[in-house]
Amino acid sequence: MSPLRIGIAGLGTVGAGVAKLLAANAELIATRAGRPITLTAVSARDRARDRGVPLTGLTWHEDPLTLATDPNVDVVVELIGGAESPAKTLVERALAAGRPVVTANKALLATHGTALAQAAEAAGVPLAFEAAAAGAIPVIKTLREGLAANNITRVAGILNGTCNYILTTMRETGGEFGAILADAQALGYAEADPAFDIDGIDAAHKLAILAALAFGQPVDFAAVHIEGIRNISALDISFAEELGYRIKLLGIARAMPAGIETRVHPAMVPKQNLLAAVDGVFNAVLIEGDAAGQVFLQGRGAGAGPTASAVVADLIDIARGTRVPVWGAAQRNLAPSRPVAIERHRGAYFLRLMVVDQPGVLADVTAILRDHGISLESMLQHGRKPGEAVPIVLVTHETVEASVNAALSRIAALPAVLEPPALIRIEIN
Amino acid sequence: MSPLRIGIAGLGTVGAGVAKLLAANAELIATRAGRPITLTAVSARDRARDRGVPLTGLTWHEDPLTLATDPNVDVVVELIGGAESPAKTLVERALAAGRPVVTANKALLATHGTALAQAAEAAGVPLAFEAAAAGAIPVIKTLREGLAANNITRVAGILNGTCNYILTTMRETGGEFGAILADAQALGYAEADPAFDIDGIDAAHKLAILAALAFGQPVDFAAVHIEGIRNISALDISFAEELGYRIKLLGIARAMPAGIETRVHPAMVPKQNLLAAVDGVFNAVLIEGDAAGQVFLQGRGAGAGPTASAVVADLIDIARGTRVPVWGAAQRNLAPSRPVAIERHRGAYFLRLMVVDQPGVLADVTAILRDHGISLESMLQHGRKPGEAVPIVLVTHETVEASVNAALSRIAALPAVLEPPALIRIEIN
Repeated sequence: MSPLRIGIAGLGTVGAGVAKLLAANAELIATRAGRPITLTAVSARDRARDRGVPLTGLTWHEDPLTLATDPNVDVVVELIGGAESPAKTLVERALAAGRPVVTANKALLATHGTALAQAAEAAGVPLAFEAAAAGAIPVIKTLREGLAANNITRVAGILNGTCNYILTTMRETGGEFGAILADAQALGYAEADPAFDIDGIDAAHKLAILAALAFGQPVDFAAVHIEGIRNISALDISFAEELGYRIKLLGIARAMPAGIETRVHPAMVPKQNLLAAVDGVFNAVLIEGDAAGQVFLQGRGAGAGPTASAVVADLIDIARGTRVPVWGAAQRNLAPSRPVAIERHRGAYFLRLMVVDQPGVLADVTAILRDHGISLESMLQHGRKPGEAVPIVLVTHETVEASVNAALSRIAALPAVLEPPALIRIEIN
Repeated sequence: MSPLRIGIAGLGTVGAGVAKLLAANAELIATRAGRPITLTAVSARDRARDRGVPLTGLTWHEDPLTLATDPNVDVVVELIGGAESPAKTLVERALAAGRPVVTANKALLATHGTALAQAAEAAGVPLAFEAAAAGAIPVIKTLREGLAANNITRVAGILNGTCNYILTTMRETGGEFGAILADAQALGYAEADPAFDIDGIDAAHKLAILAALAFGQPVDFAAVHIEGIRNISALDISFAEELGYRIKLLGIARAMPAGIETRVHPAMVPKQNLLAAVDGVFNAVLIEGDAAGQVFLQGRGAGAGPTASAVVADLIDIARGTRVPVWGAAQRNLAPSRPVAIERHRGAYFLRLMVVDQPGVLADVTAILRDHGISLESMLQHGRKPGEAVPIVLVTHETVEASVNAALSRIAALPAVLEPPALIRIEIN
């Protein structure tokens, strides 16, 4: 059969990885896809740089946008990144030209996923993005196809390897966030500008994509409550261990009576939980369906090979003629987004206060909690240092976040409370 | 759009579960599939039995074979079970009549998978079997689609929930196999005739299917080396714990220079390994690809809901028009099967001898191992009971199984060795 001709826009780590994988496994890919998948065109700024893969004989587009309508390109692979143009315009033009698009761009999908899906649907071509969620883990395929018979009740994942690496290393070494981040940057596990990862934005893009697929609604990045890991202290990690928890940056999408809760934040996870054991740069996703029960997936969430594995899987699907609706159902059949605000979250909370060790502080704190209807499961205060600052840890029973916020603002105003209280949500299941 | 009309042959736990799931999630399934999926015909022996789902208005076939050509059936779902007829004939007739087939029948696929795939390919219709490998875990889809760009190097899985439940309970309680099996039967976790599960046949059927998909070769059940868990003793489980291992019944398919090794047997798995932590009735599969690295999947491998989840996912794929080659590539493009015999397996071994506690036994044993070029990583002999039977545990470095067998037959013949030695392979990765 005639080859499926591929144009790649963006030859960074992932783009070069896709080119390499298409070359290295060409025969196997052709056998499985039923036809060869051949790279014919590329676009990147620096033409001279050695990318470890021969690029001779390919059409080189100075402007990525001209790749969208290259007559020798059947499928456009967008690996430029970023929610806006040129990535956005490239994808729009390719779809308008009736070209299938494969992208690893989580920011683009999370931000403009509805309009792009409409364009793909109107053009009758696939818009595929397995690499935009969890690298080598086929979580898009699992949600959209493998578990398609299920009413999904919850998706919870470790979706950012940088954060998981930092939190794992903090636990293993006892170090503080800043020092571990600097080490991670030196080792190449964190970017020079790490904000996108450590502030939870990257995980939130991925969660917005997973939530849309899980609950059959338009992607709604604005609805995601986002907290990063900058404020996680060695002290909290050590208290977590003592209480039988691990602190993980989780992305959680959960069906509630009032709608869908989507949130990215550090969470205390019981040590025996599957997500608690996922360490280092790995990603993992736990999916709960009414028929399947819990399905757990773990693998590498980033890097050239794992991301290329997902991009080329999408290309093989396209070569085989597979056509699945972008968001798992026709656009007109998606349910309206029904976000639930974080203030309405119900759960247990880990609260840590730094207080002056003096009589009466705990009585004041517990009186405020009582006033807001919050009951405690446990309390920890180690050692005595009269007159000095000591930590008090409170673990609540299930309660509403708005009540916790109201209580904490009163607690923070107590003269004996020296710092803003730390709050970490506990995820039991 | 017009509904996709389903006929189910076999209304046991799984068949009733599929009927229930199609009814319970009908709207959601129609939205995702792009058209309703409607049960129109069934076949089962006992028409009177209450299956917890209304079956009125359906065509009832006394003979499952007539369901294959029912003009009101678009897709035949075979849930009768068993490698031979009527299941086999039903599937053959349905394919010959140009009807797509969905089955959960691992024995059928493992035994007649090549002929049936040829029939499906000739008829140009799908033969889908996600439910035949690991229940709710979409491992067929992951191998055949999600990781299709990868040269797969290894698949290792816990593929039988009954065995995993028994081994987990033996570890947790210290009990012996026979007593725990009886408990499992009373609890419904093991069949009245448990041979199929505990002798490794069920896991071997599943492994043969996974190996064919992973390595692009015809399914070859006869090539699978099979050992069950009957001979696992509480003593070995306790030694495993001491050495830092867990004993699991694994199905392993591994690419070797000489070909593909496929084997089902109890294995010692390091405690920190992902598979070691999979307890109770859960199934799990670890897949290694050259691009993706390790991808790990865990979920429920049996039961009405999890199996129905996989069956209906296949139906949704068919409704969406997805067409993937049965074994991941056109039949003519499958590589010839290149099985590697278990005697050529290279690995480390746990060996346990019951010997008379008397001077010189260990010297005799180690001399025999030396003669066969086998070196030891560790040796355990706890306590002294002069003149009585005591266990000696030997852990070898990596060696060839044929050498181990030769050494063990000489060791077994020593007068001081009282029982046939126990051999459990160690899986490091």
